[in-house]
This record gives sequence, C-alpha cells and structure tokens, in this order.
Amino acid sequence: MAFGVVFTQGVVSGDPHRVTHEILEQAEAADRLGFSAALTTEHKYSEEYFGSPLHMAYAIAARTERVKVGTSIAIAPLYNPVELAQDAAMLDQLSGGRLWLGLGAGYLPEDFSTVGVPFDGRGQRFDETVRIIRQGWTEERFSFSGQVYDLKDIAVIPKPMQSPPPIHLGAWTPGGLARAGRLGDGWITNALMSVDTMRTLGDMYRSSAADHGRSPKVTAIRFCWTAESREDAVRDFGSTALDMVRTLFTYGAITDMPGVTSADQITLEDAMRDRMIFGTPDECAAAVEEYRTRAQVDDLLLIFRHPSGPAQDRVLAAMELFGTEVIPRFAA
Amino acid sequence: MAFGVVFTQGVVSGDPHRVTHEILEQAEAADRLGFSAALTTEHKYSEEYFGSPLHMAYAIAARTERVKVGTSIAIAPLYNPVELAQDAAMLDQLSGGRLWLGLGAGYLPEDFSTVGVPFDGRGQRFDETVRIIRQGWTEERFSFSGQVYDLKDIAVIPKPMQSPPPIHLGAWTPGGLARAGRLGDGWITNALMSVDTMRTLGDMYRSSAADHGRSPKVTAIRFCWTAESREDAVRDFGSTALDMVRTLFTYGAITDMPGVTSADQITLEDAMRDRMIFGTPDECAAAVEEYRTRAQVDDLLLIFRHPSGPAQDRVLAAMELFGTEVIPRFAA
Repeated sequence: MAFGVVFTQGVVSGDPHRVTHEILEQAEAADRLGFSAALTTEHKYSEEYFGSPLHMAYAIAARTERVKVGTSIAIAPLYNPVELAQDAAMLDQLSGGRLWLGLGAGYLPEDFSTVGVPFDGRGQRFDETVRIIRQGWTEERFSFSGQVYDLKDIAVIPKPMQSPPPIHLGAWTPGGLARAGRLGDGWITNALMSVDTMRTLGDMYRSSAADHGRSPKVTAIRFCWTAESREDAVRDFGSTALDMVRTLFTYGAITDMPGVTSADQITLEDAMRDRMIFGTPDECAAAVEEYRTRAQVDDLLLIFRHPSGPAQDRVLAAMELFGTEVIPRFAA
Repeated sequence: MAFGVVFTQGVVSGDPHRVTHEILEQAEAADRLGFSAALTTEHKYSEEYFGSPLHMAYAIAARTERVKVGTSIAIAPLYNPVELAQDAAMLDQLSGGRLWLGLGAGYLPEDFSTVGVPFDGRGQRFDETVRIIRQGWTEERFSFSGQVYDLKDIAVIPKPMQSPPPIHLGAWTPGGLARAGRLGDGWITNALMSVDTMRTLGDMYRSSAADHGRSPKVTAIRFCWTAESREDAVRDFGSTALDMVRTLFTYGAITDMPGVTSADQITLEDAMRDRMIFGTPDECAAAVEEYRTRAQVDDLLLIFRHPSGPAQDRVLAAMELFGTEVIPRFAA
C-alpha cells in the first residue's frame, strides 16, 4: 500500500510566498519519509486553494528525488488538452518518470467562469481530454475528432518518459465512475466520502473497469493527523479539520451526511467518523486497515496541512510520525 | 547593464530528462555567476525548442535564489489570459518577486495549429492578453470586454508579489513595436537582428513609448560565446552557431540579410557580424559596448547553449568566463 500526500493551501493560509515554500518543505519531507507521492490540487477562484497545480509540480519535482509528482486533481476541462499533454509529458521527463496525473471534471461553476470555460458540457470535455492526452503520449502523430475538440495530424513533443504515465480520474457520480472505469488507470475518491460510500462507488468503478478490460486501482484522499496521544491530535487538528469539512460541505463536495442541511450542523465527531485517519499511530493504522479492507482501497493520498492549518512545524511532526510509525506497517 | 541567460533546447539536444537537468544546472550557474535572469522560451511544435516555458520557470525558481525567472518569450495568444496571469503571479510569489515575463505574438503557424488556436488575429489576442494580465494583477476584481475576450467580475488569486511584475514584449514589425511602446514595460529584440536593425526598430519602439508616457527599456537577445582565444571560440561554437542561424532563418525569424534567399547561403561570418557576442572576454566586452552605444540596448539576454550544442561542460565554462571576466566591466 502506498501513501502519498496532497497539498491544499491557498491565500487563506497566509502570505503566498511563505506558503509556497512551506509546500516545498512538505514535499521534501515526503520524499525523505517514505511517502510515495507529493501532489498538488487546484481551484481557480478560491481563498482556500491555489491554482497552478501542474506548475507547482515542476517546482516540487526540482526539489525531490523519489516521490511521484503531479496533480490530484487538476480540473481537466479548464485546460487546452494538447498543452496539458505536453506540459505533463515534460514534467514526466523533468522528474525522471515520476508523473502521476490525477484529473477531474470540476464541480464549482466559479472555477470555470474565472477562466471563461463553459461549465455545461464539462463531462464531455473531460472525456475527450483524457483520450487526447493518451493519444498524444503514445502516438508519434495523431488526429482526434470529438464533439468539443478537433485536431489534425499533430504531435506532442516531448513524449513522456513512462510509457505512458498513469492517468487517475476523480469522480463521485455514476457517470464519472463509469468514465473512470472506461478511461482511467485508476479512480480517485474525494476527501470526505464515508467508508461505506467509498465501497459502494468503488464497486461501480470496478464494474466499469472490468467491462472495459482495465485493472482497477482505487486511490482514496483522506485528511490525516497523527500524534503521540489522541488528546494532542484533537488539540492540534480538531478545529482546522472541522473548518475544512464545513468548507467542503458548503462547496458541495460532501453529499453523504444524512440529515445535515447546513455546514454549521456538522460536529467534529461527524467529521471524523469513517472519513479521516486520525489519532495515535495505532489508531491511524487501524483506520488505514479499514480503508484497505472495508473500502477496498489500494493506495492513500493524505492531507496533513489544510488551508486554515495546522502550523507548519506541527504538520512536519505529524508527517514524520506517520512516516516512521505507520507506513512501515503496510510495506509490501 | 544586466546580463541574463535564455535556454533554447529541445529534443534535438538529446534525451529530454538529461536536457531538462542541464537547463537547471545552467540556471544554478547563472544564479551563482552574477547573471541577472535565467529565462525559458517556447515553441509548441519543434524539435529545437521545448514548450512549457512557464512550467520550467517554476523548476528554475525552486533551484535559484537571486536571478529573475520567467519567459523570453512565451507565445501569449496560445494561453488563456486569466490562467497566464494567475500562473505568472504564483511564480512571482514562489520566487520571492523575481518574475520577468516576456511575451510575444508568435510567428510560426505550427505553434498555433498544434494547440488549436487561430493564427489569424494573434496580434489582437496578444494585445488583449497583456491588458488582461495587468488588470488581473493590479485590480482586486475586474471585468474586460475586448474583441476576443469577455470577462465579467473575476479575480486573479494570488496577486503577484511585485506591484506589478514587468511585462516585456517581443516584436519586430511596426505594429508590434507600436504595441510594445503602448503596452510594454520593455521591448525584447529577436536573437539575430543586426545592430543597425535593432537601432532602427528601437527608435520606433522608443517613439511609441514616449507617445504613451512609458519609460523605454530595450532588452536584446544575443547568441554568446566566450573563450580564452578566438580559435577556441570558433572550434567550440562555430558550427552550432551557424546551424542555429540557418534554422532561425528558415523559421522566418531573420529578415534583414540582404541577398540571402535560403539558409545554406549563410556563412559563419554573416552569422557573427553585428549579430552575436563572440570571442575572447575583450572581444565580447567590445561587442557588448556596441549594443549599448550603437543599438541603445539597456540589458542583454544571452544564449550560450543552442538546440544543437555546444556540450554542457563547455557551456558552463563559457558562462563562467563571461560571468567573471565580462559582466564586472559593466557593473553599474
């Protein structure tokens, strides 16, 4: 089982110069501590998240030696698909074959209106983008004729180093899960669906992958906090975790909390239960085991640092504790 | 007078993984040796140049402390202007206020057809893109209504660190020079126009800048090679320089060689005369002085490593000789 990290910070986290360097410092820590990946994410119009995920991945690649680099996730319909294919291939070359590309359809209208891309039809754009990237990576020259994109006899230069790099698709709707099975090298959950939801949606994804002759791979994104005691974990992580869950609920990213109709109804217990990896190393390992067995998750992507906290020194300490005390228990 | 470097390599230069790391090594050398900038350039469809110039600039920013980072030039009409504004602002933050953004309209149809952007109307796209970037950087929220782009009440997040970063415009047509004077914080020459052409075009640019109340700043791109003797310079640099001039002539980037109708007519003497900075430190300093006085150039951007050569160890040696023997003579 592999354990990566995802960086979710934005201008709400503080001075952007300082925050970008905190992200690089976390990436270097991940590289050193046995994590498998150090990935970026994006919103185009947000105080909580930065954009430029693929750009930041180049900076991370330049500071690391071992971890996978890339996105989880970049909002695919916002990109020119050929540029995305080239920029991602170049990152694969720069990083020595470490590209891990996670793409999603997007769900916030503001992300689209900010850069003038239509929100309607984003599923079709997403679909065609994945197909264009893979053609561009694997065919010397290619043409593509879709409902959105029409490309004639072009070439992606350079080709990636991996042949080809994996493309993992984020999804949490039936159509998106079917697409992930049909087109993806893996499915990425969202950060806060419950274990039961993950298992149910995972079955839909695995069924689609089987229909299309693809090997399924489930990567779950989880908020994570490890501390020497549960009390320390609650003290350092409780309020920021609750803020984050409430923010994502407001964004529409959490849809499986029966009875909850507004963010301020969510309690810390609601936020933790079946949705996070939290507590002492033993408690974290038990939670990981739940994801592995009950939700049939293959790999995890962990979020230690949230937009609104905790502080960098505590994040690095939590990462170190997880890297030294939890990851070795799941070594292949 | 400031001396930056520009990286012009592509798949013709060798294995892309190795070449991207050679670029980072050159950037680190520039940072150490007193150069002012380490910039990238782009073509979308080329064996000689890589694309992803802004992405690579993030990797360079992550490996340097002092040099300006950015592009000279990125082909502005190929970009979503709001994304370009955000990605460049984020680079300014990552680098601690070191962004130097050079933009051009593009001149090769293949760059446009590769990513499906119309070649016609690129001047208007370029014009609107520069205005959108500057509005996005300096106004908390803004709207823009142009012939190409129509944006309503959006915000670029984060804002850049510099207030605002400079935007330098490449141009070598009357319309482009007028635009550079009207919209740019500076004008960037191409790599191979002669001293006389540079002076003539520079006068057109300066006249436009004066008409629009802007302070002119001329940055000349030059191929450069410094060696202990002229014989060493010819041996290490002669054939690759000639290849490069012939390639750029074929691309249509050289238009002031009277009587030359095909690339194979160009001799090494044609290539050197009034177009390069070449030879011993004394000869290079004399050439720099020509650009400063005859062509009224403010700053230089130097190309030591061409797509087809010379080898990395010789490039680093030439950069070191220039940095230690030539740059100090022009210290303010």
